Order: sequence, then C-alpha cells, then structure tokens
Amino acid sequence: MQLLASYLAGKWSPGSGAKQSLVNPTTEEVLAEVHTGGHDLAAAFQHARTAGARELAGMTFAQRGAVLAALAKAIHGAREELIALAVANGGNTRGDAKFDIDGGAVTLSHYAQLGEKLGSAPLLGDGEPIQVGRTARMGGQHVWARRRGVAVHINAFNFPAWGLCEKLACALLAGMPVISKPATATALVAHRLAQLFEPLLPAGALQVLIGPAGALLDTLVPGDVVAFTGGSDTAKMLRNKLPEPVRLNIEADSLNAAVLGPDVDLGSEAGALFLADVARDMTQKTGQKCTAIRRVLVPEARFAEVCDALKERVSAIAVGDPSREDVRMGPVATAQQHKDVKAGIARLAAATDSVYGGTGEITPVGVAAGKGYFIGPVLRSTRDPMNCAPLNEHEVFGPVSTIGLYNGDAAFAADFIARGEGCLVSSAYSDDREWVATFVGAAAPWAGRLYLGSSKMASQSPGPGTVLPSLLHGGPGRAGGGEELGGERGLQFYMQRCALEGDASVLKTLIGG
Amino acid sequence: MQLLASYLAGKWSPGSGAKQSLVNPTTEEVLAEVHTGGHDLAAAFQHARTAGARELAGMTFAQRGAVLAALAKAIHGAREELIALAVANGGNTRGDAKFDIDGGAVTLSHYAQLGEKLGSAPLLGDGEPIQVGRTARMGGQHVWARRRGVAVHINAFNFPAWGLCEKLACALLAGMPVISKPATATALVAHRLAQLFEPLLPAGALQVLIGPAGALLDTLVPGDVVAFTGGSDTAKMLRNKLPEPVRLNIEADSLNAAVLGPDVDLGSEAGALFLADVARDMTQKTGQKCTAIRRVLVPEARFAEVCDALKERVSAIAVGDPSREDVRMGPVATAQQHKDVKAGIARLAAATDSVYGGTGEITPVGVAAGKGYFIGPVLRSTRDPMNCAPLNEHEVFGPVSTIGLYNGDAAFAADFIARGEGCLVSSAYSDDREWVATFVGAAAPWAGRLYLGSSKMASQSPGPGTVLPSLLHGGPGRAGGGEELGGERGLQFYMQRCALEGDASVLKTLIGG
Repeated sequence: MQLLASYLAGKWSPGSGAKQSLVNPTTEEVLAEVHTGGHDLAAAFQHARTAGARELAGMTFAQRGAVLAALAKAIHGAREELIALAVANGGNTRGDAKFDIDGGAVTLSHYAQLGEKLGSAPLLGDGEPIQVGRTARMGGQHVWARRRGVAVHINAFNFPAWGLCEKLACALLAGMPVISKPATATALVAHRLAQLFEPLLPAGALQVLIGPAGALLDTLVPGDVVAFTGGSDTAKMLRNKLPEPVRLNIEADSLNAAVLGPDVDLGSEAGALFLADVARDMTQKTGQKCTAIRRVLVPEARFAEVCDALKERVSAIAVGDPSREDVRMGPVATAQQHKDVKAGIARLAAATDSVYGGTGEITPVGVAAGKGYFIGPVLRSTRDPMNCAPLNEHEVFGPVSTIGLYNGDAAFAADFIARGEGCLVSSAYSDDREWVATFVGAAAPWAGRLYLGSSKMASQSPGPGTVLPSLLHGGPGRAGGGEELGGERGLQFYMQRCALEGDASVLKTLIGG
Repeated sequence: MQLLASYLAGKWSPGSGAKQSLVNPTTEEVLAEVHTGGHDLAAAFQHARTAGARELAGMTFAQRGAVLAALAKAIHGAREELIALAVANGGNTRGDAKFDIDGGAVTLSHYAQLGEKLGSAPLLGDGEPIQVGRTARMGGQHVWARRRGVAVHINAFNFPAWGLCEKLACALLAGMPVISKPATATALVAHRLAQLFEPLLPAGALQVLIGPAGALLDTLVPGDVVAFTGGSDTAKMLRNKLPEPVRLNIEADSLNAAVLGPDVDLGSEAGALFLADVARDMTQKTGQKCTAIRRVLVPEARFAEVCDALKERVSAIAVGDPSREDVRMGPVATAQQHKDVKAGIARLAAATDSVYGGTGEITPVGVAAGKGYFIGPVLRSTRDPMNCAPLNEHEVFGPVSTIGLYNGDAAFAADFIARGEGCLVSSAYSDDREWVATFVGAAAPWAGRLYLGSSKMASQSPGPGTVLPSLLHGGPGRAGGGEELGGERGLQFYMQRCALEGDASVLKTLIGG
C-alpha cells in the first residue's frame, strides 16, 4: 500500500499516527494511505520564512516566471500519468482529468508569460504618477509590494491539479513562499505534482502537506495570507479562527445561473450554444465544479422545449466507470459527497418537479453492483424560480440543475442572479444588445464573471464553466468575496498596495522608471 | 439644552428613552444631549433600499459628482460656524478644526471632479480589453459595477467632519446610499453637516444616526457594506458580528513611525522638515490622529541632538483652552480618552526614559482648576526600540511619541516599520536615493502610505499626517487591512469587480465605448 508523504522543510516525511485512506470512488478500492498527523509544521513555516522568502526575494518577476514555465513543462511531460491518477482517485473521465490537469498547466504558462513581461521591476506600479504638492516636484505613486510572510493554500477536492497550480502561480510570481494543502480524499494528483515540482523550485518556495490541516493555521503571523477554496461552513470557521491581521481569500458556494434571452430560438446558433453549455456545465466532473450551472432560467414560451431538449441531452450521457472510453460521467469523489448530493436533491425534490433522473438513482456502466459513489444527472423544474428557497439558497455539488421559467424580462433575470446572493459566474444567451446591456448593468454586482453567449461566440466559446487565467475568478457574497486570477489582478492578494509620496523623480526610479 | 435629532427615513427624529450628553472637553460643560435609542432603523434601511437606491441609480457619475460639489460649497458657506462647534465639542484649536473641516470639503471636491471625469459611463472599465477566444471576436473586459445595497459608515470621534465626508464622497459617487453614524461624543459637527447636506441630496442618499449604533448592524443583507474607523477592539467585534456576505472595511490602530536617514543633518532642509513633521504630527489634534507619529527612529549619532530639538519644539507648545488664540493644543476629546491615554503613557513609562513631559501632567492655560481632559505633550526615548513591546504593540491615542535609536541601516528601519505589524503611514527623511530605495522596498508591504521627506520636499510638504484624497488611506495588519480614498480606488469598496466575457464589440459598448 502506497503511503503518501508530505514535502515539508525540504524533506519528504510520512508523518505518523492514525491513517486515512484514499479510495477509488468507482470501485471503493483503497489506493493509498496518509498519516493524519505527525508533521513538524513549525519547522515548515520556519523554512518558508527563511529559505523560501530569501530565495524568492532574490529573484525578479522574470526569473520567477521562468520557474513557473518549468512547472508547466513538467506537467506536460507527465500528463498521461497524471490523467491516470485523476481517473482512479477522482472518478474523473479522461476529459474531466484533462480539464483539471491541462487547466493547471495553462495557468502556470499564463503567469510565466506575465512574469516575463513584468521583468525586473522592484515594485509594481499601480496607476499613473499623480501631482500631490503645489508643484510637479511633489508626487504620488501607488505601488504593489511583495508581502512578507507565508501563503497558505487550502484547496478543494474537485480540482487537485488546477487548484494547486492556479494559487501557486499567483503567489510564487508575487514572491511569496507557499504551503499548499490539497484535499486529502483526492490528493494523489497533487502529491504527484509536488514530486514533479520539487526539483524545479527554489528551496522553501513550495511545501505540500498531504493529509488533514492539523495545526496549519495556528502559527500564522501578520503578513501571512490564507487562500481557501471549499464550502461555506469551513470558510466561516476559517474567518473566526484566523488572527485578525492575516488576510483571507475565500472561494465558497455559488449558485451559478444560465439565462436564455427572449430573442433566442433553440434552433439558432445561440440556442444551441445555450443547450450545449448547460448540459456540459451541469455534468462535467459530475457537477463537482464551483462554476457549474445550478440554475437555468428560460422564457415561458420555450420552457417545455428547453426541458425536453436538456432531458434529451443529459439522458444520452453514459454514467459509469470513468476509465471506460464510452463513459461520459463518473462517480462523485467521496462517500460524503454522495450523501450530501443525495440530501441536496431530496431538498430540491420537495420544492420542484422532476424533468429527468428522479433523485439521481442510476445503474452505472461497468461497475460492480452496489459499488461506487454514483449519481445520475438530475434535471428539476419550477414555475416560480424566484421563490424556490432550496434552489436559491443551497448549492448541490453534483450533476443537478433546475430549470425555472420567467417572462423574458432582463431585469427579472438579473434579480434572479442576485437571488443567489453572490456567485462566481453566471451566463446569459442573447443577440439583443439592449437586453444584454440591461441584464449586465443589474447582474454584474452579483457575479465575479458574466459570460455572454451569442451566435457570434458559438464557434469558439469554452462556456461559462471554464475559468481562464486572464479573467477574474471569485465572486461576492455567498461565493466568499474573493478574487483570484484575472492576470495581474491575481498577484494583488499576495502584495500590499502602498501609496508613495515624495520627490516625483525619486518615485519614478522606485518602479524602475 | 439642545437635543440632537437623527436624520432617518426622510425625517429628523429625536429618538426616545435614556439620554447621553455631549460635553466641552475643555470646561466639561454639557453642550447638547442625544437619546440613546428609539429610532426605527428598519425604516431607515428600507428608505435607503428604495428611495436612496432609486435616486442614485438614476444619476450618472457626473450628476453624483455635482451633488458632492454642492456639499463642499455648503461646508465653505458654514465654515466659521463649524469651526466654532469643533472648538467647543472637540477640544480643537482653530487650526485643528480647519484641518478636519477643510479636509472634508477638499475630499468632497476631489470626488466631485472625479465624477465629472467619469461622466455617464454605465460601468467603469478596469484595465484593457483582452482576447480570450481563438479570435479577437471573443473578448474579456473587467468592469466595476455599482453594488446594490446600503453603505453603513461608522466614524471615529477625532474627525467628525472629514470622516463623514471622505466615506460619503466615495460611496455616493459609486452610487450607494449611506447611513452614517458619527461618534456620539463629538457629534455636534457631524449633526450640523447633516443639516447642511440634507436639502442638497436626493431622497435616501444620506441618513445620519446621532447616538449609539443600537441595532444598526442587525438588519444587513448581502450587497450591503460597512466601513468602520476606530479601535481594534471594536473592529474585532464587528468582524465577528457581521453576517458573512457583508463586506467590511476597517481602519484601526496604527503605530506610525518616522525615520531619520543617516545622511541627514538636523540643520539641513530635510532635517528641519523631519523635526517640524514630528512635532506637528504628534501634537496636532492633541495626537488624536490615526496618522500621528508614534514612533521616531534616529541614527545613534544624532539621538541626543534629536531628543533636545524635539524637546525644545514641543515644550514651546501652549496647552489649554483651544478657543484662545495663543493656545496651540487643546484637551483630548473625552474623559475616557484621557483615561486611556494616561494608561498608555504609564505602560510606555515602564519601558522607556522620559525626554519631556513626564507622564503628561500639565496646568492648561485659561482653564478652571481641575477641569478639562488635558494631557501635555510627552516625549519618551529608548535605546532598544525594536524590543520595546509597549512602543510597538499599543497605540497611545494622544500627544505622545517615543524616540528610538538605530545604526542608520535602511533594512533595520524597514524592520522597525514592520515591527508595528501594519500601519497607515510611515515616513523616512533622506536625500540618499539608494538608502531610500532599500527602505521603501522592505517597508512598503507594511504601510498603506510611505511619505518620503527630502530637501526638495521641504517647501511644499503637508507632512505624513495629512491624508490626501488622491492617495490611498488604510493599511495592512494592525491597521485593519482597509483601503479608502486613493482617487478612483476609493470607489472600489462600493463596487463589485466583474469579468465580462463575450463578443468584444458588445463588451466595448457596455463600458460606454
């Protein structure tokens, strides 16, 4: 039995004490074990604060970017091996696994290029120089400065590769050493990445704790930061546990919506894009995507037609052993997720009508009877989506969407986005520019990203569920209020914005001018 | 006896029940009273969410800016009256009062001009358009969107005019209706401002609660924001009390430092600037300035000389009745502040040496014996500033500074800034560009603003203690991690950043292009 070690304080150490198993969610077979404790976390922080901080401080943005490029290359070199681990430990289909792993590599490459662009600037300028005195001599210049301290990353089980890479890319490029904690249940991919990355990184730049967090948050000091992706309950615990001066970025629950504009025929390019996006973004990774489409809003005139079309699409998805080529959707990742999703479906079922899939019972393809954490795609519907509390207040983290109807009004659609109390992404499909402008103006404050589908986008769109390194990832309210990625914006969490005030010619030299 | 009313839900209402007194801190005479409760705060929030939101949504940035310009004009028109209220209720000298009141007007004017510049853009663009698809057709554009909800402002006692105006300017320009709660003890100035502003503002745009907060934070919903200025203890309470999805900006304690570079002779222009800034920024407003200089760092060779020079300057400051023209420093604002500052001085006294002023005992000029909350300027010194915990860990909110010595090393000076665990502003005085570059690189992550004094700045500098609307106000760590002002940056707390993804030509029109 493989025993996963953590990479801490420059060494691979297995920990000690009680053990936890990592299983294959398709077969329930145990794949590896990890000790639940026994690590010297104080030594890990010390290593980050000394070696890690020193190494990264001595490098320019361009040099740190070159390291990120090497990490991306390492992923490409081990791609097949990583995909196999994701299929086994994550219940991913090959497509799901590539989405996670290639997404991680793409994000590293994006920040590698950004590093090259930022070059050797000692501080990053924020905006233009300003005159603050009576003459141009006395100036102001806002800058972003590398924060001193350690970045602790706590990642979710659904994206073991991408989650590790996207947070790491931003922190390392900004110049902060990282201690990363993948979710234990699906840690095989992250563990392998840590092995691949280790020889490519400066000492102390990345440490990876495999297993429970333990005392990971108990020794934080001012200057440190914590970036968390996961559920709202854990997020709330974190907020209350952290010492005041430690910055916290949260990506939590999100009730993402997709809205069909009243101008769109299902037979049009925009209509086909809408159907394809909804069907994919509710079933990809078995719906275990923080950007998955949970709520669908459709004009009353097309309600029945959309229900039929989506039913047809999701019913065609073969569910079962994700290592099989004919299977398009695997199990959810853990027994606990299975239980939670079933409970969420039951809550929804009490307030909505079934369109397809009942409450998720399914006989998976190629799986031993009674084994695996399988849930079939579930489509529900409601004629009163705005007042359906289970729909708008509880994220069901599985292949489950609910179709609601509306009168086609853009303001109502935006209110429906708002009813989710803050989301990572929502989408609207329309070729009516006036409708889109009204929708965006009212929906934008409730979303970290708005995806605007249209006939012109049909041929080249990755859909709303794909997080891009150049665009912000995060959302207000229920989604946690965080901001990750978005190109240079992604560095800001790891830096301090500071207003410099003084001799304008001195300020210019400080940002490398 | 004047009974102060609150302006809530479109009406002036006195509240009911128990009363609290506002006193003159020089004479201890009661100036006015306020009921401690009896307000219908639910109606106030409802008014903001309906009338206030509707009115502001219907206005462009330029139109909101024009309102701010009118508010600034109203302050100018009532300047003498406001100064008199600040002298009586705040213990302000005329200069202190002008610093607060003119500062408020300047900030309103700054944001009025920004509004004019932003014009009628429906959404504010953030950065340039990006290509996110395979062709230029599919684009990304980050925008800032007006947040729906109510902005609650909780202000500190020391800047009743500026505090109200600077928060109001940013929120209103961004388009959020405001409920502002001035500190009760010094509320006469804010109350008068509310009276002056009321006829100039759209319905529901500004409501002002005079008196204790009561249930002010109990009915917040997602989309609302709270901006708080005050002590760390209240800030901590707020963090724990607020519902998760409500954004919170905090300006709290700050142990601002001023560093003399090793190249600067006291007799030089830079040396004179240093001495003038320290003497002013420890005694202006009787040291009740969140940006006051609490910690002074001086090269060993000039330690005695600086102690003597500062002693000479602060000993020349006449302390007493601030309504007298010959008086340069008044009392602290309340009996509680007096008690807290005395306790802080005692804590410092146990770990430092006296340079001037003992523990603050003083016989104020023109004040009846035993009356008033007076504390004289206090200068302390230490030869080991880095290890002096009371100096680096407790803000004493009065006319108190401590002079420490160091070896002139820029890295040590930056570490000393960091030892305060995050501050609003710190300053360094040097004409040595290399020393300055080293200092800034290491100190910037620990400060919201760094003021760089030099011989070239001597003639036109407002000093580090003056917050400018064009530069960021806020600081990391102990200072609360907030950001206010900084020109357009000040609007961001009241807006949501959203990534738009879609047809590039559509995105362009959405930001008014």
